[in-house]
Amino acid sequence: MLKLYYSPGSCALASHIALQEAGAAYTAERIDFKSSQQTSPEYLAINPKGRVPALVTDRGILTETPAVLAFIAQSFPQARLAPLEDPFAFAQAQAFNSYLCSTVHVAHAHRVRAYRWANEEASFADMKRKVPETMGACFALIERNMLRGPWVMGDSYTICDPYLFTVAQWLEGDGVDVSAFPKVSDHRKRVAERPAVRHVMADQLAPA
Amino acid sequence: MLKLYYSPGSCALASHIALQEAGAAYTAERIDFKSSQQTSPEYLAINPKGRVPALVTDRGILTETPAVLAFIAQSFPQARLAPLEDPFAFAQAQAFNSYLCSTVHVAHAHRVRAYRWANEEASFADMKRKVPETMGACFALIERNMLRGPWVMGDSYTICDPYLFTVAQWLEGDGVDVSAFPKVSDHRKRVAERPAVRHVMADQLAPA
Repeated sequence: MLKLYYSPGSCALASHIALQEAGAAYTAERIDFKSSQQTSPEYLAINPKGRVPALVTDRGILTETPAVLAFIAQSFPQARLAPLEDPFAFAQAQAFNSYLCSTVHVAHAHRVRAYRWANEEASFADMKRKVPETMGACFALIERNMLRGPWVMGDSYTICDPYLFTVAQWLEGDGVDVSAFPKVSDHRKRVAERPAVRHVMADQLAPA
Repeated sequence: MLKLYYSPGSCALASHIALQEAGAAYTAERIDFKSSQQTSPEYLAINPKGRVPALVTDRGILTETPAVLAFIAQSFPQARLAPLEDPFAFAQAQAFNSYLCSTVHVAHAHRVRAYRWANEEASFADMKRKVPETMGACFALIERNMLRGPWVMGDSYTICDPYLFTVAQWLEGDGVDVSAFPKVSDHRKRVAERPAVRHVMADQLAPA
């Protein structure tokens, strides 16, 4: 039985949706960021990085969203969540997810986690002010060059879709006008309507 | 014939080494960051992100180091650069590379590319001052929890090794005392001695 550690609103949503879409047998355990549970000794024993997601498997614990997503796709091939038989197409999906984790998520994190990279309040405020611009630039590139439609990779729903959906949840909070990105907006609605996504959203939004 | 676009000293070194280790037929073309060639219209047509690496294949262009590395490993399976038959072990390798791109490379980039995330000179200076601490924390985690030895994944040299080698090249410039990380230091030396790595380093360091 797989076990996913997540925090509502975090990037762990992507892995949670992928597990549900894959038809995996799993449990999901909420980590309370408000009480800093992610840095408790108990959780650091699970993930020394103090982050989510962490996926407990019978072989060990996996972290990092792109790796967890690819693992789910490869472990449940019948769910067809990635083009597993085509290294080039698989790499395109990996490249998309890698961009989300290394550039888009990082741009977003400068709004409320600027302390990771600086020490002064004035720097935090400066970094926060720039987030609408950096997130807007990321999504302009996604809109123009990356999102093929109707799904990220084209006709097939893949592990890229819940991840884009997850990151796109942050746009309003980041001060980005989502209406400037009609393909991204449509994609977000399309993903939200999927039964697996409705199920996971209800689970993550339920009272603790 | 594959074609890799790179800039000396950049993270594209990892993909360059992997191509050489794989025995791939490829050419490598240098992009001159000093003259901002990466943001020229010609290069933006290749990679709209204005970054390296970009790998031109007969199917199209791939970007993002973890995706390019996995593509090389899957395209040249006889080179055994990743545990391709084992989704869990493959995910562990992907998780390592994902950590390098989304956390370690990002920490490093705050030293000279702080303008990506802020606008004020004072913020840039603040971010730059914190880099020895953030990069040191990343490498403490790598030393303690991630680098199994002799190679990142243990007994087998994989696509994680040239990537760690590449990022570890930046430590002195980032103000980190490498001697505090004996396993990382040994790994760096071990990778540097490989014929494929010597070949690529000589190529990248040759006059333009």
